[in-house]
Amino acid sequence: MKIDNYRNVEPQKLMDGKILKRVLIGPRDNAPTFVMRVFPLEPGANTPYHTHPWEHEVFVLEGKLKVKAKNREYEVEKESFVFVEPNEEHQFVNIGDIPASFICVIPNSGGE
Amino acid sequence: MKIDNYRNVEPQKLMDGKILKRVLIGPRDNAPTFVMRVFPLEPGANTPYHTHPWEHEVFVLEGKLKVKAKNREYEVEKESFVFVEPNEEHQFVNIGDIPASFICVIPNSGGE
Repeated sequence: MKIDNYRNVEPQKLMDGKILKRVLIGPRDNAPTFVMRVFPLEPGANTPYHTHPWEHEVFVLEGKLKVKAKNREYEVEKESFVFVEPNEEHQFVNIGDIPASFICVIPNSGGE
Repeated sequence: MKIDNYRNVEPQKLMDGKILKRVLIGPRDNAPTFVMRVFPLEPGANTPYHTHPWEHEVFVLEGKLKVKAKNREYEVEKESFVFVEPNEEHQFVNIGDIPASFICVIPNSGGE
């Protein structure tokens, strides 16, 4: 069993530090199937608009985000969840005034 | 893409309604690998002390819980995460005064 507060996990800085990535549970813990990560995005920060063969299962912890899909945009906030299917185009943008954090779970095939 | 507030998902009542289970993303959405569920537990409510071949990756959203493992007990609260390994004995007990909610992700092999 591995237990901790997520803020104790050393973050990786992405996009010049505007996005922090914490891998809470993953292959290094011998998690056999999927990886749990948390991403806080600074206001205005965005993940790349991209696609990949693996899915995302996302749960928003705080803040307000725009989710961009191929032909639509959605607004999500605390308590929203998002299923991004394999090969579906997607992007997350913090459109609020405070950091926006979300859990993003991916299969081990997506790396960490 | 599937997007909603988790409270809009119809809950299943477990343990005489002391535990609600919401399957946010899973096989019915064609999620290929793993299932995201949310469980609120009423104060004093507990999940069974049990074990199974699949893992749990848990993130606590609110409240205070005791996690019972084979030879140890832990206290966790909002922002804690818990990795329960395959075949590891475990139980969650709400030891606070308010409902305790957590995300619990399992592989598709664990059902919903």
